[in-house]
Amino acid sequence: MTRPAVVGIGQTHYAKDMHRTERDLALEAITRACDDAGVPAAAVDGFVSYHIEQVAEVDLMTALGLRELRFMARTPSGGGGAASILGLAALAVASGTAECVVAFRARNRSKAAAYGRDPNQGGRPWAKAGTRLHDFRQWHYPFGVAAPAHEFALIARRHMHAYGTRAEHFGMQAVAQRFHASRNPDAIMRDAITLDDWAASRPIAEPIRLFDCSLENDGAAAVLVTSLERARDLRQRPVSVLGQVQYGAPIHTQLCEFFATTAAFGERDGGAVAAGRRLFGDAGLSPADVDVALIVEPFTVAVPLALEQYGFCARGEGGPFIASGATRWPDGSLPVNTHGGSNGEAFIHGVNHLPEAVRQLRGAACNQVAGAEIAFVCGAISDPAGAVLLGADR
Amino acid sequence: MTRPAVVGIGQTHYAKDMHRTERDLALEAITRACDDAGVPAAAVDGFVSYHIEQVAEVDLMTALGLRELRFMARTPSGGGGAASILGLAALAVASGTAECVVAFRARNRSKAAAYGRDPNQGGRPWAKAGTRLHDFRQWHYPFGVAAPAHEFALIARRHMHAYGTRAEHFGMQAVAQRFHASRNPDAIMRDAITLDDWAASRPIAEPIRLFDCSLENDGAAAVLVTSLERARDLRQRPVSVLGQVQYGAPIHTQLCEFFATTAAFGERDGGAVAAGRRLFGDAGLSPADVDVALIVEPFTVAVPLALEQYGFCARGEGGPFIASGATRWPDGSLPVNTHGGSNGEAFIHGVNHLPEAVRQLRGAACNQVAGAEIAFVCGAISDPAGAVLLGADR
Repeated sequence: MTRPAVVGIGQTHYAKDMHRTERDLALEAITRACDDAGVPAAAVDGFVSYHIEQVAEVDLMTALGLRELRFMARTPSGGGGAASILGLAALAVASGTAECVVAFRARNRSKAAAYGRDPNQGGRPWAKAGTRLHDFRQWHYPFGVAAPAHEFALIARRHMHAYGTRAEHFGMQAVAQRFHASRNPDAIMRDAITLDDWAASRPIAEPIRLFDCSLENDGAAAVLVTSLERARDLRQRPVSVLGQVQYGAPIHTQLCEFFATTAAFGERDGGAVAAGRRLFGDAGLSPADVDVALIVEPFTVAVPLALEQYGFCARGEGGPFIASGATRWPDGSLPVNTHGGSNGEAFIHGVNHLPEAVRQLRGAACNQVAGAEIAFVCGAISDPAGAVLLGADR
Repeated sequence: MTRPAVVGIGQTHYAKDMHRTERDLALEAITRACDDAGVPAAAVDGFVSYHIEQVAEVDLMTALGLRELRFMARTPSGGGGAASILGLAALAVASGTAECVVAFRARNRSKAAAYGRDPNQGGRPWAKAGTRLHDFRQWHYPFGVAAPAHEFALIARRHMHAYGTRAEHFGMQAVAQRFHASRNPDAIMRDAITLDDWAASRPIAEPIRLFDCSLENDGAAAVLVTSLERARDLRQRPVSVLGQVQYGAPIHTQLCEFFATTAAFGERDGGAVAAGRRLFGDAGLSPADVDVALIVEPFTVAVPLALEQYGFCARGEGGPFIASGATRWPDGSLPVNTHGGSNGEAFIHGVNHLPEAVRQLRGAACNQVAGAEIAFVCGAISDPAGAVLLGADR
């Protein structure tokens, strides 16, 4: 199989209420990714995005003047798929199905603000009157556990109960990411915060506070994948896709016993544990080889969970790992979300984490991890999700 | 790469208004596919469906008691993706990403009948008040070209104008498929029709008549894919996936110049022409090698279009090809939709065409093509779509 590589990254300005269509945003991010690589947009022959993406491949094809598409795929779930869209693009290239594949996501939350006016487009499902549920959410929506913050709060509480994690550990990650964002000119949140600021921010669903939450904003991000061989003739230093995994997991909407601390759940263990072993095993690497991690976090509690599940620290040690400063640039042993993450840079359902991983391996990040060779990216834990390992091509 | 094979097929009863959830329907089709193969459902480690599929992979995982999912993908568009979901499942197996992947689709049109009562679920977008359109449909919905029948009618008219095709050619395909369905115990439409019956059926969007249209019904269909090596130890005669392609195309919602008869569209040519050349070229086969074709047809006009685009007959000759009886079992040179197709057996967005292709290559179809060795399946033409070539493993 052909070794795939990321050769271009692109993103729009990130802001609230940009009042631009998702198509417009997607096109900007995609053409920027092509320009970054030095590849004409007309060479793109594949697209991957989320199943909920509202920009159709055919619209992009028409707008970009593409002659032929050879690969089109979507990945289920939102933030869970942030690494998987790159993984699927890499699979298309590796298998020879396509040669030049874009993974992207575009969001227009201003549109979503039109609750009631446009029931078929955008919006938060739990805020809609008359929503009829056909999945697990039917069991807990009627009791008021409806928004993702509610669901993640229960997982956070369980972790606190089982392992002695404190809400301040989530807060420390929020502070670290806001510090990273304060040095990122593309971040929406440019003011660093202290742990006192975090503690003073209002509770959304305890123990989750406002500053733990992902932002709500518009924008788009894209990465361009082609073969490593072709990549070496292009404009940027290539970033190899060293491995990828997907996994199904007890999803947060199921209010599952995520930590499998009771026998009933046997070894299910959140799914990411086995996936992580496959990912590192297939690549001949271990978590200790990773220089920088991009962990998609709808809420900061997702960071310690992912650190534990993927083996960056022992189970239950995610909180103390953060408290040790390990996830904070520049001195941490494993800087996490160096662009500022979902509560600092922007929330593009996690897809804005992909360009940052690439920048780090190019040596071009605003908060550059010195000598970064290996980057890890995972989708939102407790979703059906996936992860990728990326490597600098020296 | 590992050679993938279809080892199990499953489908529910097909009928109008079954009042079962999509999850229930999907589970039945999937467990039947596993039983057919002699593979425990717990061995499934991947799912592929349409991006509009409402059954979540995690719900299937929970219901089937799966330990691990290694591959989840969706394909854009509806009937266009009928072959592509099998193609993506085959890619997952071929690449070693997963070992036992289900491609499926479940539909509950009864639910969709609840127009207005449930704006967030099901239903035809063009029938919804307050629909806000962000794609090409915004240009023609206001003028009354809103349903797929309207859009396909324009393509059909253009074909008639350019090549002398007559509406009766579409009718002859409708009659052939209803004859096939009359011998299929699983078909919804068990009464054969004559061309006079077709001519007497009411116009939906001229030249498209009622009997040209796909049915509206509930049900689900699934196929199970694993490696050919493993397949040879299982219950059924394996069916190899010999090749697959996807393509982007001028989609019917764009009211495109589908036939590229004007210079403005250059060689775009509907997308399927180039894709078909790749498909057959990669497999070392030609259209003449195909024994039976399953052509997904929201309307019967899709059959002559696909026959032409994929090279089964010359451009403009699709109508006369049908009139010659070529697509009619048992005497035709290329029987098409031997189960009765979307206007005869059922409309599962084309996914019910996959089990029929497999039955033909097992020698177990109700309208068996004698000695069938190679089957061709394509998604709905004039969608972003794809095609697969399947081969009997003798």
